[in-house]
Amino acid sequence: MRVYGVIMAGGGGTRFWPLSRRQLPKQFLSVTGRDALINETFDRLAEVAPPENIFVVTGTAYAQKAMDIMNGRIGSERILEEPQARGTAACIGYAAMELLHKYGDGVMCIMPSDHYIEDEAGYCRVLRRAVELAAERDALVTVGIKPQYPATGYGYIRSSAVMGTDGRPEDYRKIEEFVEKPPRIVAQEYLSLGGYAWNSGMFVWKASVILDCYRRLLPDIYEYLSEISRAFGKPEEKEVLGRVYPKIPRNTIDYGIMERAEGVLMLEGDFGWNDVGSLDALALFGEADAHGNVCMGESLMIDTGRTISYSSGRLIAAVGVEDLMIVETPDSILVCPKNRAQDVKKVVEELQAKGYEKYL
Amino acid sequence: MRVYGVIMAGGGGTRFWPLSRRQLPKQFLSVTGRDALINETFDRLAEVAPPENIFVVTGTAYAQKAMDIMNGRIGSERILEEPQARGTAACIGYAAMELLHKYGDGVMCIMPSDHYIEDEAGYCRVLRRAVELAAERDALVTVGIKPQYPATGYGYIRSSAVMGTDGRPEDYRKIEEFVEKPPRIVAQEYLSLGGYAWNSGMFVWKASVILDCYRRLLPDIYEYLSEISRAFGKPEEKEVLGRVYPKIPRNTIDYGIMERAEGVLMLEGDFGWNDVGSLDALALFGEADAHGNVCMGESLMIDTGRTISYSSGRLIAAVGVEDLMIVETPDSILVCPKNRAQDVKKVVEELQAKGYEKYL
Repeated sequence: MRVYGVIMAGGGGTRFWPLSRRQLPKQFLSVTGRDALINETFDRLAEVAPPENIFVVTGTAYAQKAMDIMNGRIGSERILEEPQARGTAACIGYAAMELLHKYGDGVMCIMPSDHYIEDEAGYCRVLRRAVELAAERDALVTVGIKPQYPATGYGYIRSSAVMGTDGRPEDYRKIEEFVEKPPRIVAQEYLSLGGYAWNSGMFVWKASVILDCYRRLLPDIYEYLSEISRAFGKPEEKEVLGRVYPKIPRNTIDYGIMERAEGVLMLEGDFGWNDVGSLDALALFGEADAHGNVCMGESLMIDTGRTISYSSGRLIAAVGVEDLMIVETPDSILVCPKNRAQDVKKVVEELQAKGYEKYL
Repeated sequence: MRVYGVIMAGGGGTRFWPLSRRQLPKQFLSVTGRDALINETFDRLAEVAPPENIFVVTGTAYAQKAMDIMNGRIGSERILEEPQARGTAACIGYAAMELLHKYGDGVMCIMPSDHYIEDEAGYCRVLRRAVELAAERDALVTVGIKPQYPATGYGYIRSSAVMGTDGRPEDYRKIEEFVEKPPRIVAQEYLSLGGYAWNSGMFVWKASVILDCYRRLLPDIYEYLSEISRAFGKPEEKEVLGRVYPKIPRNTIDYGIMERAEGVLMLEGDFGWNDVGSLDALALFGEADAHGNVCMGESLMIDTGRTISYSSGRLIAAVGVEDLMIVETPDSILVCPKNRAQDVKKVVEELQAKGYEKYL
């Protein structure tokens, strides 16, 4: 059975300012110090799906940028342009239609473009098993991450172990519930109860199977997508896409499908996953010194502890501070406590409000 | 009687890093946003002493820099070069010898080059009165600053009011004691007791009078200075200076003269004086916002209070921090709590230890 990779790269994340910018969102940054996150995503995925079967879905504004940064990994015909961001339901449905009608049915491995994975071999093992399940049972499969701590920044998946025909537990689980980002106290309860995993936003299923779910569960979206698909290969394809896509109701795959479909399966992954959702994730990509400081670029930490410094070229000197993030780029400096990392988006909001375009 | 100005500009202050550098100490910086501190010092002094009577004493390494920055204010012949820094006793004694032998006796107004004064008219009033006292009574006069708060970073002068012949209190006071930088508790006591002033390091006296004090109280230094003076105007002048000056015992004018001389007078000044001794003084030179933040250069303060930001060109964004100093220069960034401002010198020490010459 054909295996496809679909990389969702539409995000314009703002919590990574000043590193991420409107013109250069997180997926295009090399925050790991190795390569751009989208390239690391592609290269991981290429271990499971043939490289020529990997597609990128992104906004028209980012298409050229993706081409440039992924240099040679992918041809323009495999970059699907969303005329407008309409949520993951539209994005994934569009990709499924494109694959089914232009390339033939197959198992889609749908991945966010801007996550970090430490153990790539472990990731590939789980993903290959997901492909088997999706191919053999027409199942909707998602990857849940074994929780490492009571995270409040992730959604959770409650699942139950399933029994095989031989009465022994299967490696996959049956999803019972998707839960929103919980308060700390609740997250702690999830960890002690067990049976909860982090929602990674990775999905594996056949194009034909997911589109059948759209037909049943999201008929309005399905109708718009069908209208678009009927123009595939015709001269008016681009025009139709540009006219119809923006009409698709905004929805996420989680609300629209995952929480409502029957018998969704989950494989638990434990391969050092992180969604790189805020600047404090930078600590993952450097070595901590004796006082827990993680410094990328030239730095001098004096009487300073558990602080992250990221320099694009200049010396960052800190004296007598703790649990701080100090990020330097050619045009901006950000100083923020690690536990306020979520509020970095306020800077972007403020810059927008003040019309400081050049810093956005 | 002739009035001279003597600006002591030998300092290589390190507590102002990253703004001050080995090649560009504080006196040459325009931290007030108006002009270099040494130029503000010159222009203030020029209200009391004729501009052509103002001299600068500095290290050979800084002579050209001073010429450039003071552009036109002063000719090279009035920049006295110390071959080596030997303390304020040597510096002031050398200036006194130079003035007495080359230009004739007169009242010297000796000023640090890197202090800030808010009320320049008030400063001039006090200084003119000091010149009168020095001229009419051959007195050693210093200016004590009316304490604004229990500072622990300044030395104090204890003095008693004196009575005029008519039994009414005079405007000057008789110094009883010089005290070192006190701990906070002691400083508080000084303020409640009254009769204490901050030691500003400004001195006013005749060249002949102070040299007589050297002869009596610092005979060894006096001997070296005399040896130097005997070469004045001769071809070997520079050679003798370079050979003899480094032999002068290191001493300060406070230890060597002020604390030992009889009948030293003090005038109390209350003209918004600050020695700009550490980075937190930057707060003096900007307008505070509603949350007590003082920002120089482009900045964005979000949920941030009582923080100082100084930008040489880049945007400084702070989120959720308090009482912090954030200083940005073309090659370095410093982040330090205001109450650790004294420890900024540790950065310079560390840079020296690590051999990061380019940041010194």
